[in-house]
Amino acid sequence: MIQESPVLQQLIRQLQQVPYLASKNLYRVAHHFLEMDTQKATHFLQAVQAAQAHLEKCSVCFIWKERERDCPFCASQKRDHAIVCVVEQWYDVQAIEKTSSYNGMYHVLGGVIYPLEGIGPDQLTIKQLKERVAQGEIKEVILALNQTPEGEATAAYISRVLQGHPVLLTCLARGVPVGGTLEYIDRITVQKALKERRPF
Amino acid sequence: MIQESPVLQQLIRQLQQVPYLASKNLYRVAHHFLEMDTQKATHFLQAVQAAQAHLEKCSVCFIWKERERDCPFCASQKRDHAIVCVVEQWYDVQAIEKTSSYNGMYHVLGGVIYPLEGIGPDQLTIKQLKERVAQGEIKEVILALNQTPEGEATAAYISRVLQGHPVLLTCLARGVPVGGTLEYIDRITVQKALKERRPF
Repeated sequence: MIQESPVLQQLIRQLQQVPYLASKNLYRVAHHFLEMDTQKATHFLQAVQAAQAHLEKCSVCFIWKERERDCPFCASQKRDHAIVCVVEQWYDVQAIEKTSSYNGMYHVLGGVIYPLEGIGPDQLTIKQLKERVAQGEIKEVILALNQTPEGEATAAYISRVLQGHPVLLTCLARGVPVGGTLEYIDRITVQKALKERRPF
Repeated sequence: MIQESPVLQQLIRQLQQVPYLASKNLYRVAHHFLEMDTQKATHFLQAVQAAQAHLEKCSVCFIWKERERDCPFCASQKRDHAIVCVVEQWYDVQAIEKTSSYNGMYHVLGGVIYPLEGIGPDQLTIKQLKERVAQGEIKEVILALNQTPEGEATAAYISRVLQGHPVLLTCLARGVPVGGTLEYIDRITVQKALKERRPF
């Protein structure tokens, strides 16, 4: 077999690290980048660089926001600050926002408790959630974690952490298929599950 | 719904153009790029830039090669220059090389004839193939195009173009599933189909 160009090997190695690119598709994606004209490639590179330079996580809800601007959720006067929806990842916020049926705040945990992978409560933003609740403005916390064993264990952990605080804990209705992950469910189901949320 | 940051919108728009990223995964991939530390991001960007700057298509076989080096296929003295395997795309070469059972040259067409998409013979490297064959060194041309209607029509077109040249035209054995695309077939099937190639 012919030895591949080191430049090409390097590109393939970098693409291997991008999630959701099957190894079967790496060469097709590499081909896409090679076929790009210089202007298009520059636009792509600039977009990644700009995102790296200008986006940071909100220090309150941990949603990606522009460094120079307020968090569009936390700074919004139109949204309900008394209710917080706790999700595992930033992209779960998209699934909920798409339903246009939620108008409260968010709290991105950054994952779930997963001892096998070395992820304990301290690697997540659970402490910061407790601090938010302790300030007393929040009346309800919706635990919108995925219904995986780890998601449910994390929800149970959070419910213990928030014990003693005068806050209503709810979770999404059982409309969400057991074992499913939030991001992949159609928006109507997410909307229903959100409307029929019940005490945790 | 909250208006997204323009910087983030730009990143998502750029990612939308990458093939094999389902729209469901765009935010997850964006998250991957945002979570990258600066050093990793720089490595990724440098790899794309280096590939753009240093890779070009070989002017004979149209495989990506380093600008400063000879084509590893065309310049190889260990490979058989009398046999040329015609493939649709550069990544099909990978599928054949993986079998370690082919030691000839390649010719990348850059696609197939597809009038509906405005791709005629002139958009492909068929003329250049004819010129290669006309030089007289080539004894056999393997048409290893995908068995799609367009692939087969293109193979038929090439066979007409090469008519009159004293060259043996072969195609892959019917071990390749009808309707399948070369890249997705296991390497043993590709290997068999290559060994059992028959006159076109």
